[in-house]
Amino acid sequence: MTPTITAFERSPDGGQGLARDMRVRWAFEEVGQPYEVRLLSFKAMKEPAHLALHPFGQIPTYEEGDLALFESGAIVFHIAERHAGLLPDDADARASAIAWMFAALTTMEPPIVEREMALILERDEAWHERRLRRLEESVRKRLGELSGRLGDADWLDGGFSAGDLLMVSVLLRLKGSGLLEEVPNLSALRRPRRSPPRLHARLRRPTGGLHRRIGRLTKAHSGPGEERQLGVAGGGKQTLRALATGPGPNSSENAATGRAQGTRTEQAD
Amino acid sequence: MTPTITAFERSPDGGQGLARDMRVRWAFEEVGQPYEVRLLSFKAMKEPAHLALHPFGQIPTYEEGDLALFESGAIVFHIAERHAGLLPDDADARASAIAWMFAALTTMEPPIVEREMALILERDEAWHERRLRRLEESVRKRLGELSGRLGDADWLDGGFSAGDLLMVSVLLRLKGSGLLEEVPNLSALRRPRRSPPRLHARLRRPTGGLHRRIGRLTKAHSGPGEERQLGVAGGGKQTLRALATGPGPNSSENAATGRAQGTRTEQAD
Repeated sequence: MTPTITAFERSPDGGQGLARDMRVRWAFEEVGQPYEVRLLSFKAMKEPAHLALHPFGQIPTYEEGDLALFESGAIVFHIAERHAGLLPDDADARASAIAWMFAALTTMEPPIVEREMALILERDEAWHERRLRRLEESVRKRLGELSGRLGDADWLDGGFSAGDLLMVSVLLRLKGSGLLEEVPNLSALRRPRRSPPRLHARLRRPTGGLHRRIGRLTKAHSGPGEERQLGVAGGGKQTLRALATGPGPNSSENAATGRAQGTRTEQAD
Repeated sequence: MTPTITAFERSPDGGQGLARDMRVRWAFEEVGQPYEVRLLSFKAMKEPAHLALHPFGQIPTYEEGDLALFESGAIVFHIAERHAGLLPDDADARASAIAWMFAALTTMEPPIVEREMALILERDEAWHERRLRRLEESVRKRLGELSGRLGDADWLDGGFSAGDLLMVSVLLRLKGSGLLEEVPNLSALRRPRRSPPRLHARLRRPTGGLHRRIGRLTKAHSGPGEERQLGVAGGGKQTLRALATGPGPNSSENAATGRAQGTRTEQAD
């Protein structure tokens, strides 16, 4: 049965692709699982029908037969458990990848979101700038620690995993802040890389092609044609793979297509 | 091999048992797994030896043979996967319990921690009170949504799971705020319950016996005798079970002992 996820009808980020459905879409694309998307208005998100799926009235949710899930981390984990490509087979490596999933969402994302919220809610306050500086220091601290661990490695721990997927999706939220660019091994790399996509490369794209493409495509969130434009109703793989990922080393049978598209995207930037 | 976790030598909460090692200890106690604790100074947490275990220089970590994990959520999940009692066998119920694990740490905990941080970092600012009110509203909103989902149920989704464990451990952080007490089905229940421990009961204890006992026992964190006092070096089950849990319906063979101790604790308050 094809799973259905929910996403914003009009994303608060104005269509930059930073909403939390994107990490679930990426996971689907990475493993080659078709899926459908149901768009929700803000009003619908707080109504009983949606609250039955998501107690906190947010997106994304995941429905497949009798199973209903919420929390993007849990949904990505569910996808990763049921398909090859997002979690290692080795038990210890798998546990470590899961640790990175939690690290992305519980250690890295909160200070980034707190900074975003300050920009939205406190911009007119006299103390906004001073507080913003402090919040940026919190984000810098985490980025520095992450950078220290990553070093010259391709991925956070061995091969590409759902931990990398979630970490990249979280770091994408820093677009436009300039903070990512301060960290050499996390920011846009100047030298070309011929090796398979790696965390560096995935982070590079956001500053160029990835974000531009996300912006272009997810603007469809605000219109009724989204499913057709993204082609997500069972056939979004080609478009979104090029959009959000480029294939990981574990990606599915469409890897060659996706890689070619990814390359074209990078060249076009 | 007995796993070893790390904890604060001197907990920033002054020994109230709110540090993130407590949720891991609770998971160990719940499944009856002996464990050892290595206490760390703040200085040691930022040194290379610990950063090799925890890239963000925090506690807890988990070591067992060649496996090293960080992130309390990932450690609890690791324990839950390897022992009966913290995750349902049914695949859909298991996925749902995992969703509640993520919900506790990524939806419920961040606003609670943000409020804590404001109390620590911004108490002297002229705008502190006004901002604190806004943060409290954020916490209230989440508590209200959680309350709405819980209703009269015993646990968040069917039987007791690691999702309940993490949710309770997060809600414990609200001790002293008065916010939990505003939500009838989450706060201290007045009427006695004879049924097995349930989320309500676990939440009740913190306002009385649980927190007092946590405070008393975890004060040992600040002294070198902690391991002996808590008895965690392979034999902490009886003490800590009475302290932190009372047995869940899925708890191990020591359930009867634990329940008796839990009852004594409540009577003593």
